[in-house]
Amino acid sequence: VNAAIIVAGGSGERSGLAAGKQLAVVAGRPVLSYALAAFDACPAIHEIVVVAHPDRMDEYRAVAVDPVASAKVSRIVGGGSTRQRSVAAGLEAVSSSAQTIIVHDGARPLVTEGLVTAVMEALERDGSLDGLVVGHPSFDTLKSVDVDRVVLGTLDRNAVWAAQTPQAFRARVLREAYAQAMAEGFEGTDDASLVERLGRRVGMFQGPRDNLKITVPEDLLVVERLLARGAEGRRGE
Amino acid sequence: VNAAIIVAGGSGERSGLAAGKQLAVVAGRPVLSYALAAFDACPAIHEIVVVAHPDRMDEYRAVAVDPVASAKVSRIVGGGSTRQRSVAAGLEAVSSSAQTIIVHDGARPLVTEGLVTAVMEALERDGSLDGLVVGHPSFDTLKSVDVDRVVLGTLDRNAVWAAQTPQAFRARVLREAYAQAMAEGFEGTDDASLVERLGRRVGMFQGPRDNLKITVPEDLLVVERLLARGAEGRRGE
Repeated sequence: VNAAIIVAGGSGERSGLAAGKQLAVVAGRPVLSYALAAFDACPAIHEIVVVAHPDRMDEYRAVAVDPVASAKVSRIVGGGSTRQRSVAAGLEAVSSSAQTIIVHDGARPLVTEGLVTAVMEALERDGSLDGLVVGHPSFDTLKSVDVDRVVLGTLDRNAVWAAQTPQAFRARVLREAYAQAMAEGFEGTDDASLVERLGRRVGMFQGPRDNLKITVPEDLLVVERLLARGAEGRRGE
Repeated sequence: VNAAIIVAGGSGERSGLAAGKQLAVVAGRPVLSYALAAFDACPAIHEIVVVAHPDRMDEYRAVAVDPVASAKVSRIVGGGSTRQRSVAAGLEAVSSSAQTIIVHDGARPLVTEGLVTAVMEALERDGSLDGLVVGHPSFDTLKSVDVDRVVLGTLDRNAVWAAQTPQAFRARVLREAYAQAMAEGFEGTDDASLVERLGRRVGMFQGPRDNLKITVPEDLLVVERLLARGAEGRRGE
């Protein structure tokens, strides 16, 4: 059994777009529904746990519990005060029989069934890896800086990748990583960072450029435009 | 005398948006005109050199030579096959009396007079610096990876900044850096990287989040929306 955790909200999110962005309607459907549909369509995914904003469970339930669009949603749980706590809540709701768990931010609606399938297959294929993270070589020119913001050097763009989601892991390893991080009070910026600190082997999987995360209102416009272009093939693909 | 080089095109750019994005009309005006107006309005800037696509000089000239909007444009020169060669062409057209040179990508139309002034003043104030680069701590989760794309570790986001433009430098140092890079065949991803390799001291200056670079057609939409919000204050400011 392979499970997906779609992180769609936590109690720590500020009001405004952040708290409601997953429910904002883009091209006629809520943002969250796009990622749900992509994971639902993937044959390698057998169950989906949705982590929702605890104060708006009914609204999230209305989106997620749709036997046509997302028949695989098994649980909807309330998120915590940080992203990490939200994922931890989702992990507890995943079947104990799950062998691979793939985590995705619901604010990235442009994920496709093809991308999810490709990541799951690549992790399946390479037994040396404990996890696989979608991302791309950094588009930015990156500078390492000291505490005074003086540049120490320019990083090699090919050696630095920006991590996105989805991120897929052996279930046992991800559970161990979360247990240890929570016990030690470590707060990471993504799921892989928790796994990396166990010394586990995590690979990067190059995804399409347009797998963007909605963070400001303008992003909704961009997503709408990209969805409209969907059939012709999206940028970066 | 302080000079600005606005890089608006080079012969190496592919057709389509890349070659023409500076001429695309947003909110009634060409993209390039916004950056020009910001630098023109800055009292600390005395002359502006525009680097244009060599095949479209007339079109760029029509935008840049506007005695009302950009009275300070002193020269329009054709760009080279790479960004670095384009800046080098601009450098040759800057007055030899220039003491500070500030370089900006014309594809970042959301730069403001206030930002340009703040950077020029900060560089003026801190004699220990040879250059000052606008940027921000990375928004992305960044992974250093080996040649097999296996994650070596997650970078500390506070210690890694994304560099944008404008980037301001002591004129003498920038000229030396370009001469040396060109002589040695070094190709950097930004101007500061050429100065850094001389062992010169470059600082980061935190800019607003919305100083985005137009790279894909959707970005034009976002810029239009952000310009419309201009009076109410833009995101990140």
